[in-house]
Amino acid sequence: MQDFELCLPTKIVFGKGKISLIGSFAKDYGKKLLLVYGMGSIKKNGVYQTVIKSLKDNNLEIIEHSGVKPNPVVSHARKGIEIAKSQKVDFILAVGGGSVIDEGKAIAAGALYDGDVWDFYNGKSEIKKALPVLTVLTVPATASEYNGGTVLTNEEKKQKFGFINQNLYPKVSILDPSVTLTIPADYTAYAAVDAVIHLLEGYFTSNDPNCPIQDRYVEGLVKTIIEATNTILKDLTNYQARATFMWAASLAWNGLGTAGIGDFSVPNHMFGHILGAYYDLAHGATLSIIVPGWMKYNYKKNISKYVKFAKNVFEIKGSDDEDTALKGIEALKNWFIQIKSPVSFKDANIPTNEIDKLAGSILELADVWNVKDYDINKVKEILSLCL
Amino acid sequence: MQDFELCLPTKIVFGKGKISLIGSFAKDYGKKLLLVYGMGSIKKNGVYQTVIKSLKDNNLEIIEHSGVKPNPVVSHARKGIEIAKSQKVDFILAVGGGSVIDEGKAIAAGALYDGDVWDFYNGKSEIKKALPVLTVLTVPATASEYNGGTVLTNEEKKQKFGFINQNLYPKVSILDPSVTLTIPADYTAYAAVDAVIHLLEGYFTSNDPNCPIQDRYVEGLVKTIIEATNTILKDLTNYQARATFMWAASLAWNGLGTAGIGDFSVPNHMFGHILGAYYDLAHGATLSIIVPGWMKYNYKKNISKYVKFAKNVFEIKGSDDEDTALKGIEALKNWFIQIKSPVSFKDANIPTNEIDKLAGSILELADVWNVKDYDINKVKEILSLCL
Repeated sequence: MQDFELCLPTKIVFGKGKISLIGSFAKDYGKKLLLVYGMGSIKKNGVYQTVIKSLKDNNLEIIEHSGVKPNPVVSHARKGIEIAKSQKVDFILAVGGGSVIDEGKAIAAGALYDGDVWDFYNGKSEIKKALPVLTVLTVPATASEYNGGTVLTNEEKKQKFGFINQNLYPKVSILDPSVTLTIPADYTAYAAVDAVIHLLEGYFTSNDPNCPIQDRYVEGLVKTIIEATNTILKDLTNYQARATFMWAASLAWNGLGTAGIGDFSVPNHMFGHILGAYYDLAHGATLSIIVPGWMKYNYKKNISKYVKFAKNVFEIKGSDDEDTALKGIEALKNWFIQIKSPVSFKDANIPTNEIDKLAGSILELADVWNVKDYDINKVKEILSLCL
Repeated sequence: MQDFELCLPTKIVFGKGKISLIGSFAKDYGKKLLLVYGMGSIKKNGVYQTVIKSLKDNNLEIIEHSGVKPNPVVSHARKGIEIAKSQKVDFILAVGGGSVIDEGKAIAAGALYDGDVWDFYNGKSEIKKALPVLTVLTVPATASEYNGGTVLTNEEKKQKFGFINQNLYPKVSILDPSVTLTIPADYTAYAAVDAVIHLLEGYFTSNDPNCPIQDRYVEGLVKTIIEATNTILKDLTNYQARATFMWAASLAWNGLGTAGIGDFSVPNHMFGHILGAYYDLAHGATLSIIVPGWMKYNYKKNISKYVKFAKNVFEIKGSDDEDTALKGIEALKNWFIQIKSPVSFKDANIPTNEIDKLAGSILELADVWNVKDYDINKVKEILSLCL
């Protein structure tokens, strides 16, 4: 195990009907808030109405900033920052999935910053302070409700950048599994892929063999997410499976699984971000396309970890280490297929002859994200395993 | 999974040599502090000197309150509170093991309270605020460095009471595994038993069968603590095993393993506290005496959980569920024997003819701790399985 610092200050309020408590928590953070949300689905499922009532019952003044896109864009965040500044709001309440929360964090930091918020994303500036962020999570996947991460897309520059900052951990996050019962099968599957790959990035890219706590944490959560997803896809309204999924997704990327593992990187997210930027694909779908190929390219360099993964997650015992490792990769791929998340360019109907272009963009992102050990040939070879 | 609230605000600073950073973290909490520590072992291993230098380098004014006993007593905490009040310290720095941190928390709360600090322990009053507590952990076991718990003994009333309060989570806890390399084998074993039983109390007393996240969290940490302890006992100076043990013990009782499992109780700790109060035994030793008997008494009512434990922690496959469950209990008991923690009254050389007296005291504590479903016959029957 390596040295680490970890602080998870977010108060998690988990359970059925807890959204109506948001006002009672929010009033500790001021009198006037910016309510950030997306394209209006929260008005259809009643979450909006519950939130507004709870805020008003607690005498809070609400300024609205809606229309956050699934891949939130910096231009929209800038508008939110303008409103937050001119209205002098005390805090941000983000109601939605990871995109809404990510933009909410951008607004929280931008509201206390004189420059352009994109400075934080391209590394020009670092967040020293931010307005408090509270969240009501409606779509579990990214764990933004329980971490300091944010990802924005700059439409002009065609860049999708993200980073982690301790000041961006939400103060309070309300997780009510009952509002997730209406998430359709495809987006449930993509969310599951995302959460599983959050766990596996550090697991497969850390080089420290002495991390039994973290390895078992990851393996346990991956098994749990697989089981819960399988149950949900048979019965979308299974509350217990939805609850398990919701909490597991939060725990999958809140820093606990990577604390102490030393240096790690997120290469599959790097490849996936570029696929998502080029083609109209859900984030989880881009990951299931990349991961099996990425694993096949990499398993020989860290075979004991792949053997461990196969044994502990899928209970596979192959004829030798190589066989076990490969069967583990195949089992994960088969699970992606089972839950109907694409596992190849062809599955997703995206062109297979644009690898050169993709590889260039991936390398540019590798530079920004400081993901080392990737050159153009390696990137192309990995992509060629994903066609 | 049940509804829950969880907030783990403590900043964990983990790693070799991190103790010298205490001053740089501490200065954020004021200028004058009460340094709480025990019987002086921190002066022998150099921790005291490192802490003092770091505090002075950061221009902090230090008031000392030493002499905390292994089972900290309220009279000593009262003295600390007097000093904290008269000296108007800004925060508490507890340097030591769980006892020192527990008393540090008592002082932190008592310093901002007009009544007697014991009011918090006997339930007369509830903590609404406390001075900030920072900790430098030297003996991992109780997880007090990463939770809101505190246990004190009232010598006059012969009571050992404890409780959990969100205001008592330390602000910063420094965990440096290298200072644990000198902990002797017997206390390493007792600490391991304590950490394992912290995990198992909730695991075996929750009645919710839908907790795969929490179950795997517990099973993974129990396996890890067992492995790390076995390695340490072969080589007390194995840094990696000590580091794994230190972090696992913190994670074992910080609220993550029990968040969402619904009602649970800590019956083994209840029995153990009374054994410890009557006879001069280490806390972990009292638990290893009680646990196998307690499990044998209880396994039939929750056999699927005991089967799960046997399979997932010890990889046991018996001839049927009962056989598997019993072999799991036996495996845990055998591990206690292997690490030389006593598993019976006889092992610990304590009288076997005082069960009636013990049972009465245990029932009194059950009342205070609100541990239900125990009557005098049940308590005596469990004790009779531990002789």
